[in-house]
Amino acid sequence: MIDLPALRRRTFLTGTVGSVAAIGLAGRAGSAAAQEAGPLPDYIAWKDADALIVHSDKTVEMKRTEFGTSLITPEDKLYIRNNINPPSETIIADRDAWQVSFGGVRQPGALTVGELKTLGLTTVATVLQCSGNGRKYFMDMLTGEESISGTPWTVGAAGCVIWSGVSLKAVVDALGGVAEGVRFVTGTGGEELPEGLDPKELIVERSVPIEMLEHIVLAWEMNGTPLPFAHGGPLRMIVPGYSGVNNIKYVKSVALTETESDAKIQSTSYRYHALGEKGSPEDPSVWAQPVKSWITTPLEMTNPGRAQIAGVAFGGMNAVAKVEVTTDGGATWREASFVGPDLGRFAWRNFVLSADLEPSSYVLASRATDVEGNVQPETNEINGSGYSYNGWAGPAIALTIG
Amino acid sequence: MIDLPALRRRTFLTGTVGSVAAIGLAGRAGSAAAQEAGPLPDYIAWKDADALIVHSDKTVEMKRTEFGTSLITPEDKLYIRNNINPPSETIIADRDAWQVSFGGVRQPGALTVGELKTLGLTTVATVLQCSGNGRKYFMDMLTGEESISGTPWTVGAAGCVIWSGVSLKAVVDALGGVAEGVRFVTGTGGEELPEGLDPKELIVERSVPIEMLEHIVLAWEMNGTPLPFAHGGPLRMIVPGYSGVNNIKYVKSVALTETESDAKIQSTSYRYHALGEKGSPEDPSVWAQPVKSWITTPLEMTNPGRAQIAGVAFGGMNAVAKVEVTTDGGATWREASFVGPDLGRFAWRNFVLSADLEPSSYVLASRATDVEGNVQPETNEINGSGYSYNGWAGPAIALTIG
Repeated sequence: MIDLPALRRRTFLTGTVGSVAAIGLAGRAGSAAAQEAGPLPDYIAWKDADALIVHSDKTVEMKRTEFGTSLITPEDKLYIRNNINPPSETIIADRDAWQVSFGGVRQPGALTVGELKTLGLTTVATVLQCSGNGRKYFMDMLTGEESISGTPWTVGAAGCVIWSGVSLKAVVDALGGVAEGVRFVTGTGGEELPEGLDPKELIVERSVPIEMLEHIVLAWEMNGTPLPFAHGGPLRMIVPGYSGVNNIKYVKSVALTETESDAKIQSTSYRYHALGEKGSPEDPSVWAQPVKSWITTPLEMTNPGRAQIAGVAFGGMNAVAKVEVTTDGGATWREASFVGPDLGRFAWRNFVLSADLEPSSYVLASRATDVEGNVQPETNEINGSGYSYNGWAGPAIALTIG
Repeated sequence: MIDLPALRRRTFLTGTVGSVAAIGLAGRAGSAAAQEAGPLPDYIAWKDADALIVHSDKTVEMKRTEFGTSLITPEDKLYIRNNINPPSETIIADRDAWQVSFGGVRQPGALTVGELKTLGLTTVATVLQCSGNGRKYFMDMLTGEESISGTPWTVGAAGCVIWSGVSLKAVVDALGGVAEGVRFVTGTGGEELPEGLDPKELIVERSVPIEMLEHIVLAWEMNGTPLPFAHGGPLRMIVPGYSGVNNIKYVKSVALTETESDAKIQSTSYRYHALGEKGSPEDPSVWAQPVKSWITTPLEMTNPGRAQIAGVAFGGMNAVAKVEVTTDGGATWREASFVGPDLGRFAWRNFVLSADLEPSSYVLASRATDVEGNVQPETNEINGSGYSYNGWAGPAIALTIG
């Protein structure tokens, strides 16, 4: 479940498993630091423009300089990835009035957020990460005529967020329990779909295995504040451990279903498929996130001396057990220490390693291992949509000191 | 250390230990909800005005409606309490250049924030709470000619914050270790003092026992963002478990000292003293926070039905072990459940109790117990400056349903 699934071989893959040298590390840190902030779209004008890279009005990345070392990601810096236009912001005018329909339970019905708030309270910290975070590193591996479409995210389409809401399990129990034969939890977003187009092509509707029922939270709050509209307020379906697309914004329907949704975003998009092919329902879906880490500081350093090499590490569905740091591009590794509170298995941990960096050239990288023994690989085999990159080589940092 | 110290009896105290009835509960929840937001002072114009109660330009309280249930307090809602005017905001123009002097070590000297960042990294969650939080409940207990001066804080001069910085112990070790004979850690704030007045009357300089050395963090980051100027950026001395005044903003000097500071804020202010008296160096200092909790929701409820009674609980230097909730003003109690991640002994925990509230009148309150068995009392004996109220009766909530 945790390693990236093997791809179905419909065509011969030419993507190479790159070495650190092959994927062109030199100067990456410098170019990352030089990224300029673009103007923010209106619906997120309240965000910290200096902290963000605007790829498009629906794809906004946090700069790598902004992660900090205090576990949580403030909402004014958290990345944005929308698949289609958000609904009208009027839906948060009366948050408690937002209505959600529930199906696949013994007593189907609709409940408002105000009613959901009476059913229970749960709080969970999770890594929210776009399925395509790190796609840039796949793109760097392409040769010849190969191409991958999508946003060239590096590391900044990810954050660690504390959510409050009600456990979906508590809601299902209040509605009489699970109906017979269901195998998936299917959440549907409240976006308005344009007229004249096939709704199945556009609707944001994702199915995840029913085993996630016990973990899913219907969240109305993030980081101590009412869930911002831009992040799915008034209510978002949080699927801990699963990549961003599975965490349905403005959720208007939660159904326990016998089959996966036939919406395009489920059936053929967000699938691990071969380069040059299209996704199909037979390809593995982009669900649980693989173990991953990256360094957040130092990204630049020119004077020799002591450095505190720090970063974030997480294991998707699993707690992270260990992080190692290299300063020589993977030739040797030293174990880092975790710092700060442990927010639970779905959150990331901050790590730090103290190192004396004398005048020389260095390649810094981190490699995480989760509690099941899954180890972050050097790099990944390319998949055609560039999902779930978790290699340690991609986000490595080149420094020349002295 | 955890119970409020006994007061020295220089005068006969007339303050009563009030019952729930005596301290006038009825309608308190209603009046709290009706509090209006005032205009914010310029230096915190970026804060969320709707979430705050402006008592003065140096005392700004978070509304009780704003705590949320996600553990941390966003910086745009966190309370403000300054003893004197802050320094010029230009001190954060180059955060890493801010210089701090270190004394009482074997190799005294000055270090910049940039240099401190090379010495170590630690992250800690703490409850930051004004020493006078809850003073309003002492004021409600006064009779006749009795008076207490100061801000009438209810519960909102408190928040839970994640800080990142360097352990003071790591800095002291780098400076050769502790000098002989030291008994206190004395931090001095970087505020500019007005000319022509005795600096000892104004300077923000606090001493805490040397035993706190292992816990103290010199913090440059809060909640994942560079420490805001309004909260003490570029650098604040965080003393986990101790009340707000001990957490020195814009810290410019940290000295290990043989005696406590003779500044007024240490020697006679922030002392537990009898009503009608002035504080003296012989009175106990306001240091470690006592065990405390309060309900954050529901504050208002008129329709009968299921309610999730939630709140925050913390134990100062100790983790909180248990929270009980009453709906009948203390006649009976039920144990609540903790929700969400445990951020460590110095943080607060969120708790919840599910209760069916049929048409009737209710008085809701919570009572915390820490891991050493210290129990939040019904109320406290009045002290003359109204510090460290931790009774459960003061913040109780009266509801009439149906």
